[in-house]
Amino acid sequence: MSSVISHRHENPVGRFPILDVQPTVDSGRWEAKAYCGELIPFSAIVFREGHDALGVELLLTSPTGKNSVHRMHAGAPGSDRWHTAVMLAETGRWNFQIRAFADDYETWHHNTKVKLEAKQDEDLMMLEGVALFTRAASEKDRSKANAAHLSSAAETLADKSHSPHARFKAVQNTSLLKAINSHPIRSLVTLSEEFVINCERTLAGAAAWYEFFPRSEGAKYNSKTKTWISGNFKTAAKRLEAVAAMGFDVLYMPPIHPIGKSFRKGPNNTLNAAEHDPGSPWAIGGAAGGHDAIHPDLGTEKDFKNFIKEANGLGLEIAMDLAVQASPDHPWVKEHPEWFTTRADGSIAYAENPPKKYQDIYPVNFDNDPSGIYQEILRVVKHWISFGVKIFRVDNPHTKTVGFWEWLISEVNAEFPEVIFLAEAFTRPAMMRTLGKVGFQQSYTYFTWRNTPGELRDYLNELAHDSAAYFRPNFWVSTPDILTPYLQFGGKSGHKIRAVLAALTTPLWGMYAGYELIECVARPGAEEHIDSEKYEFKARNWGSEETQERSIAPYIAKLNQIRRDHPAILQLRNIEFHHSDDGAFLVFSKHLAGEHTESGKADTVIVVVNTDPHAVRETTVRLDLAKLGLAEGTTFEVHDLMTDTKFNWSANNYVRLDSFVEPAHVLHVIRKK
Amino acid sequence: MSSVISHRHENPVGRFPILDVQPTVDSGRWEAKAYCGELIPFSAIVFREGHDALGVELLLTSPTGKNSVHRMHAGAPGSDRWHTAVMLAETGRWNFQIRAFADDYETWHHNTKVKLEAKQDEDLMMLEGVALFTRAASEKDRSKANAAHLSSAAETLADKSHSPHARFKAVQNTSLLKAINSHPIRSLVTLSEEFVINCERTLAGAAAWYEFFPRSEGAKYNSKTKTWISGNFKTAAKRLEAVAAMGFDVLYMPPIHPIGKSFRKGPNNTLNAAEHDPGSPWAIGGAAGGHDAIHPDLGTEKDFKNFIKEANGLGLEIAMDLAVQASPDHPWVKEHPEWFTTRADGSIAYAENPPKKYQDIYPVNFDNDPSGIYQEILRVVKHWISFGVKIFRVDNPHTKTVGFWEWLISEVNAEFPEVIFLAEAFTRPAMMRTLGKVGFQQSYTYFTWRNTPGELRDYLNELAHDSAAYFRPNFWVSTPDILTPYLQFGGKSGHKIRAVLAALTTPLWGMYAGYELIECVARPGAEEHIDSEKYEFKARNWGSEETQERSIAPYIAKLNQIRRDHPAILQLRNIEFHHSDDGAFLVFSKHLAGEHTESGKADTVIVVVNTDPHAVRETTVRLDLAKLGLAEGTTFEVHDLMTDTKFNWSANNYVRLDSFVEPAHVLHVIRKK
Repeated sequence: MSSVISHRHENPVGRFPILDVQPTVDSGRWEAKAYCGELIPFSAIVFREGHDALGVELLLTSPTGKNSVHRMHAGAPGSDRWHTAVMLAETGRWNFQIRAFADDYETWHHNTKVKLEAKQDEDLMMLEGVALFTRAASEKDRSKANAAHLSSAAETLADKSHSPHARFKAVQNTSLLKAINSHPIRSLVTLSEEFVINCERTLAGAAAWYEFFPRSEGAKYNSKTKTWISGNFKTAAKRLEAVAAMGFDVLYMPPIHPIGKSFRKGPNNTLNAAEHDPGSPWAIGGAAGGHDAIHPDLGTEKDFKNFIKEANGLGLEIAMDLAVQASPDHPWVKEHPEWFTTRADGSIAYAENPPKKYQDIYPVNFDNDPSGIYQEILRVVKHWISFGVKIFRVDNPHTKTVGFWEWLISEVNAEFPEVIFLAEAFTRPAMMRTLGKVGFQQSYTYFTWRNTPGELRDYLNELAHDSAAYFRPNFWVSTPDILTPYLQFGGKSGHKIRAVLAALTTPLWGMYAGYELIECVARPGAEEHIDSEKYEFKARNWGSEETQERSIAPYIAKLNQIRRDHPAILQLRNIEFHHSDDGAFLVFSKHLAGEHTESGKADTVIVVVNTDPHAVRETTVRLDLAKLGLAEGTTFEVHDLMTDTKFNWSANNYVRLDSFVEPAHVLHVIRKK
Repeated sequence: MSSVISHRHENPVGRFPILDVQPTVDSGRWEAKAYCGELIPFSAIVFREGHDALGVELLLTSPTGKNSVHRMHAGAPGSDRWHTAVMLAETGRWNFQIRAFADDYETWHHNTKVKLEAKQDEDLMMLEGVALFTRAASEKDRSKANAAHLSSAAETLADKSHSPHARFKAVQNTSLLKAINSHPIRSLVTLSEEFVINCERTLAGAAAWYEFFPRSEGAKYNSKTKTWISGNFKTAAKRLEAVAAMGFDVLYMPPIHPIGKSFRKGPNNTLNAAEHDPGSPWAIGGAAGGHDAIHPDLGTEKDFKNFIKEANGLGLEIAMDLAVQASPDHPWVKEHPEWFTTRADGSIAYAENPPKKYQDIYPVNFDNDPSGIYQEILRVVKHWISFGVKIFRVDNPHTKTVGFWEWLISEVNAEFPEVIFLAEAFTRPAMMRTLGKVGFQQSYTYFTWRNTPGELRDYLNELAHDSAAYFRPNFWVSTPDILTPYLQFGGKSGHKIRAVLAALTTPLWGMYAGYELIECVARPGAEEHIDSEKYEFKARNWGSEETQERSIAPYIAKLNQIRRDHPAILQLRNIEFHHSDDGAFLVFSKHLAGEHTESGKADTVIVVVNTDPHAVRETTVRLDLAKLGLAEGTTFEVHDLMTDTKFNWSANNYVRLDSFVEPAHVLHVIRKK
């Protein structure tokens, strides 16, 4: 055929069209993402001409070369989209492609059934069955045992001593069906292109983050000298146990490097710092060194290593900040002025967005000497990897060139596939999504500005479906830069609500120290904390009775424990929303079928949140039971993990939630088996 | 840089990311479509790090190698999508790509303006301007005349005898701006991949089709013998003038080949045809030949050639039917049984969807001898092309393999790029869309089943935007297979409404003979005409007074004349919808800016349709004036092309439409210049 049929087209459609294979990123330009333990929905549009049956399979090759075949099922009627879901359990690059074929058994079976009922072609259908099974039995790649079932079926169908009806009934036996299911009778086999999905370690996709400034932890104020003594790795280490006890997986610290003195910022971002003001940790670089150095106040390299060791011992990984910028005092400025922008008057350009000036920061110029600066940042990252750091929170990646990140992450992950980069890009969707496509394992999001159930539903649907193949949202309830009106005025109930939403909607969430203490006073006119820790020391009296009374740390701990106990929660793509008569409630569920859990029991959690922090509210919650893996009309028992109480629920349920007491139900569906 | 930076990635992001270039089909797997005179919206997502200005351009290369550059403008805020629109006027394959660059002039100009206002860096910005213009003036590809403007600007900025403000003001002159606009100062130039858009002749995308059965035109009933004398090309030719007078561009005829006798269908699709029943033209092939033969009743090859000539002389092109199937009497059956499916009992398989049988039709098997059947169909198509046929309406392409069509259309268009294929695929969206992707120039649609304004709006938005790059909808108001309840019960007003909708929403529409006579009696229980012309002769007494009184032919002619007079109507992608307080109205507009019309005047048409065929209705129509190229608050004069009356309209307008008199306003916006 190839000699006669000269396709001008480079990539003509196959015997059966296979289109829009998912999960893929820009038609395979970039790799799709997964993490160990993530249930990945695979799908493709596959269809054929005419009425005959089509079979569709996912062919997976694991990073170590193990092949597996997963039969796909037809989705929404008329969509021609076929689906399956596979939980990837091995890190590394998986190859996958879709295989379509004429399902000759299904076609024959359907036609024979219909025709025997209509008394049409009875003998002919027997003959066709004999031909089909005989042909299939002789297939080279079919096992002898499997072929034997088919040959036997052919003999049965050929036996004229029985009626066609009897013969057809005789071949409907489970051993034949098993043989055919395990090795379908395929013809006209068509393969899609091959795609790659990169499976990263679990922490890349499911983790609870906590942020603190190490200089604040253990900082002491000397009221005589009216100066502070900085906290350091040794004093900060004393806080690790409490962070681990709250159930966090990652501890992130703002930059730990020497801080510049030129144009240092004072309290509340003022321009004239006093002598003892510590400065912003993001004004990196001073006499004591640059990105590869540690701020002398925090301790030595050995102190840092001990700190990491201690954290790891408690099950906490350390995330460092990677802020590619320099204070005017950074060693780079003298040694490599070519890594910055020199103005027409010979001065080095500071950061600015005219007429605003940020004179304490020199932005790096990636175009002057790309190979020099690229290699330097790679060296810095590898330097800290050698300390045992495996996670980097990247400051403002969207103010650097996207191509640099694509290169850096690719270089680092080629040698250290376990290393994770979190993008702190609060900017427009195109940039945020593209940073995910080119390699960032995680990203900050718009979560802090999505407060109503409608906003949250829309945003989560986008994140869980449209962009899930490449963009992993990390829902931070607060950061040193963000204190939204909802938190400023929501009080303790507001803080609980936002924690429930962040911790249970997405498998990645984060919290900045002080959140558990409901620190919510803003600098007047700003959506930022007053007396921000970015510019001064902040000693929290963790041990005091007043602090402990105010703290929602036990609440946070409970949420993180629920996450650890429920694999369904640690999935992003499985979120489903349900109706509430009162629009102030957000109702969502996460379900993982028994075939995907260790216990073999389905894991199903229903979360009902009263998002109004100022009221007791009542509603009727209407559940789509199919999304919970439950049959229509079922009544089932649920266990509220927040209050340890049990209820009988069904499709429609009355709910009353008092935000001042407990703003959310987190209901685990109790399964008998 | 390349020696140091070793991308593992095959297609890394460029200096500036350029993503989702449109119009493209599956990321460039297939060519996008255009037709001569179509205004094509080009766009891409392009963005950069930081605050500096970005410039984006479309680079076009015409089929004959002419290059042009089209500056793109930023679209919806936050979308990072850049746009331009170009009317392609040359048939053939155009190459296009997107170019992004740092717009150094714009960055300098913005910063200087802001800084001078803030009294910052005044001298420095002059120095930077001097450096910028000096550098740009020395660019090798810049013309001397252009460079002279830049050098002069550099001198002006360097002249310290004037204040920075005065110098800055002095360089804001139109000749410098013209020089920069015609040749921007570009750096960090980034190119997207190259894509192809295939511009076909106008009739591929904008045409009014008419369908008749040539055997009916001039058929005569002999009441003595109670038999019919078939119409033929000579008698049918007498009808051509009337079809042309209605303003149609294409005349499509069901198959003109010999019809099989075996299992021939009788009137109303009955199984036992009488001796003189003419049979369905789609049961192709008999003693007199197959797909390359003409039914003896219709005339000779010469008659057909004369018929084509006569049609062409009236401005009508002939579209033939291509139905790849055979009656049991087709010569292929004996000569090439391998082109069909042989059953296990040695018989040739007829068409069936068990338990339904279609014994008058043998479907072709594309898998047995693909090269044989592929070449045979190609030969048939070329045979009729040699008669002067340039349009083929393909019967049920979705029951044949998609790959065959991709091959056939590619082969035919390589030699005859003017040939057009219309897909008669009434099936699921994936198949219909894919047939468009692989090459069909046009397709039948779901239009006949979209009756309410909401349904029409949703469907047209999908067609005009989502799939417009590859799927050209041809809106048929009726076919010999389809007579919807709306037409069965809508009467004359219903027929007018559907004609207005089909003719004015999309640039391709079609009508089957008898529609103008409001033929609307269905076979009981079916959505099909009673006594269907598919199985019998149907003589319409076109000349009689009764017929002419009943006919809406003048109405149809008016619609087709409006199409010819208004280039805005012959665009698909420019449709915009407007609000009506009464939901029974559909309000849409089509606008073409003056820069894209021959006259240089904008062409703007507003259509208001009362879709209720049984009522007089009133509403307020609320127009989005920006979509009409009109400023907010404008009052303007409109000319109703249906009734030749004029109105003064503004954003909100009272409308009353009596469907029994005139169900639609078709308002041309009168422009002074």
